[in-house]
Amino acid sequence: MDYARFFQNAVDTLKQERRYRTFAEIERDSARFPHAVWHSPQGARDIVIWCSNDYLGMGCHETVVEAMCATARQAGAGAGGTRNISGNSHAIVELEAELADLHGKDAALVFTSGYVSNQTGISTLAKLIPDCLVLSDALNHNSMIEGVRQAGRDKQIFRHNDLAHLEELLKAAGDRPKLVVFESVYSMDGDVAPIGAICDLAERYNAMTYLDEVHAVGMYGPRGAGVAERDGVMHRVDVIEGTLGKAFGVVGGYITASRAIVDAVRSYAPGFIFTTALPPAVAAAAAASVRHLKASGTERTRQQAQVAKVKRALDLAGLPQIVTDTHIVPVMVGDAEACKAASDMLLADHGIYIQPINYPTVPRGSERLRITPGPFHDDALVAQLAHALVDVWSRLGLPFVTRAEAAE
Amino acid sequence: MDYARFFQNAVDTLKQERRYRTFAEIERDSARFPHAVWHSPQGARDIVIWCSNDYLGMGCHETVVEAMCATARQAGAGAGGTRNISGNSHAIVELEAELADLHGKDAALVFTSGYVSNQTGISTLAKLIPDCLVLSDALNHNSMIEGVRQAGRDKQIFRHNDLAHLEELLKAAGDRPKLVVFESVYSMDGDVAPIGAICDLAERYNAMTYLDEVHAVGMYGPRGAGVAERDGVMHRVDVIEGTLGKAFGVVGGYITASRAIVDAVRSYAPGFIFTTALPPAVAAAAAASVRHLKASGTERTRQQAQVAKVKRALDLAGLPQIVTDTHIVPVMVGDAEACKAASDMLLADHGIYIQPINYPTVPRGSERLRITPGPFHDDALVAQLAHALVDVWSRLGLPFVTRAEAAE
Repeated sequence: MDYARFFQNAVDTLKQERRYRTFAEIERDSARFPHAVWHSPQGARDIVIWCSNDYLGMGCHETVVEAMCATARQAGAGAGGTRNISGNSHAIVELEAELADLHGKDAALVFTSGYVSNQTGISTLAKLIPDCLVLSDALNHNSMIEGVRQAGRDKQIFRHNDLAHLEELLKAAGDRPKLVVFESVYSMDGDVAPIGAICDLAERYNAMTYLDEVHAVGMYGPRGAGVAERDGVMHRVDVIEGTLGKAFGVVGGYITASRAIVDAVRSYAPGFIFTTALPPAVAAAAAASVRHLKASGTERTRQQAQVAKVKRALDLAGLPQIVTDTHIVPVMVGDAEACKAASDMLLADHGIYIQPINYPTVPRGSERLRITPGPFHDDALVAQLAHALVDVWSRLGLPFVTRAEAAE
Repeated sequence: MDYARFFQNAVDTLKQERRYRTFAEIERDSARFPHAVWHSPQGARDIVIWCSNDYLGMGCHETVVEAMCATARQAGAGAGGTRNISGNSHAIVELEAELADLHGKDAALVFTSGYVSNQTGISTLAKLIPDCLVLSDALNHNSMIEGVRQAGRDKQIFRHNDLAHLEELLKAAGDRPKLVVFESVYSMDGDVAPIGAICDLAERYNAMTYLDEVHAVGMYGPRGAGVAERDGVMHRVDVIEGTLGKAFGVVGGYITASRAIVDAVRSYAPGFIFTTALPPAVAAAAAASVRHLKASGTERTRQQAQVAKVKRALDLAGLPQIVTDTHIVPVMVGDAEACKAASDMLLADHGIYIQPINYPTVPRGSERLRITPGPFHDDALVAQLAHALVDVWSRLGLPFVTRAEAAE
């Protein structure tokens, strides 16, 4: 075995298959977000980010940034240990109280990332529950799939957002314990789960529910607790998982649930127990963001307004978007190379940064540009975006949709 | 199935077995580290932390803290996306260059934690290599065990630091690809792997080596690259994994290796691809810390001096420590309840915070207080620590070792 050669071949294969990813090096400028600097091979260039998951720009909010700085100066740059061994900072305890309150639950537990929340949260819950059957939506995120896989329990995949299929599986499972695992906003298509109806089924067939709201927290519901809050069904979901790294603008993940469930995960989850806690400065910044978005609807309103403007501009321009109710605007390309080329041209020729979304993040043939308009994308930027997309679409010979469809 | 009752029982079982963990709520004070405030049930109290993994106090270093603040103000509190989708900050690219240089490797890859580095790093490497046999040290950390498990490959556990056993297994494996997974400093006993001899075996039997240096980086070697650097064998190890959350004082983990290996992990590891990047502010703070400790040996020298003083003071007092060559000073109790009681008394009566280390972190019967002296524990604090431990040992009737053994 020639290991060096083997790994070189593994990378070369990706390049041959056009799946090799190059990361654009970005320097955000908090004073001018979504404007940023792109460290291109030809030098630094000013660009506009249109694909950030800092959906509301809270990562650049002065209150959030200053909470991070003040706490770093007070308590240092790191936690100094796991939660059990000297890393249980005052700031992280306060953050968990804030998150439990946000979701109207007894308790919350913070993890190093949303990915880890799902991976260790789902696997720990499903492992703990004797003979648990996991019912998982077909389009669940990789972190949830890994959590289900690591549980090592029986699992069944229900067709995406398909209540009839879910009911069929729940019914067939009989009396055994069941855990339904799903998302509220699916990040690549931007569609939304029927949370209330899933809770109806879970109650009817005595299943537990685990809901990932990472692409919804901060943005939906009167206090930004997510789609379950907006739909008035938050209290019916057993476990709500969220992230501090998207609309809240920082980093980290969490679950909220009853005290016993949170305490069980806290006590049994290896991905929680054996890892250094988030720094108090990160926890304080996240708590400041959560607190701000509980009280302020301004960012949400403005985001929705700019999202609507982008959708309308793309419609008028005949660009093939997936129509959704959410803040996620997928513009379909359907080919990996064309998608990469469109992204490259937008960046190089228009200073617009929208990362191509290719396999394995989305299925082959559904490659897309995923646009995430936020409150700081003003009307001039929206117009510029539509203009740039039309230019790129024309130059690449990509199909436009008919005006009849686009007239809305 | 009554889920609520089930989880309550799961927690009650832990309490009955005395395995229920309570986290001490700590507010570090960067200006006075290792002094901190303990938010006890009876109110705030001043304490001294003796169990931090911020081994050198770098989390409180002004250069590190100010790098975090300056970058947060410049680039915001979060990365805003995965590495692929708008989260590839200038700061994290610079950090990776710094880490590759530290370990004398082509490239480095940063993860959200050391835990994730091992989990997704090991599992991805072992999955990629066809028919890979993983050879794993018996005392490897949970994150490595999870990485090995998730690889789903054949594995064999070699007795801790046992070269003869490792050779036996390597020999028996024949020509198939092999990955040897081990640590340099084992954090609970404080002992050290014979890295050079393991590399000898790996070369003889054509195995790849993966070395976890999380309890060594920053503290060993002329530039703080770890034990492999100190031993002059860094270039012989294929993959070196480290953390930014212990001696470097921040949070996050990484691997360093050849460009092809790093690129393969970057391209295939789900725990890297599908997660929000570390904030630029965290990356900048970590890079500042790495840079500082590359150039400055002051912290390392002072740490070793204070570690030696603690070991000597405990020896003279007849306290049962595991003697090691490292900065980790385990004082053995051997009983979960006594260990918890000793820790509680130290905190309540002496303002000394040393978390009890019980099962599952260490085997039952080897419960201990794990002391981590650092450069900021001055001689007066060392004397106070020894005095407090003797008081607690006496009051709990715990055994002292004989003066003959203690005379050193």
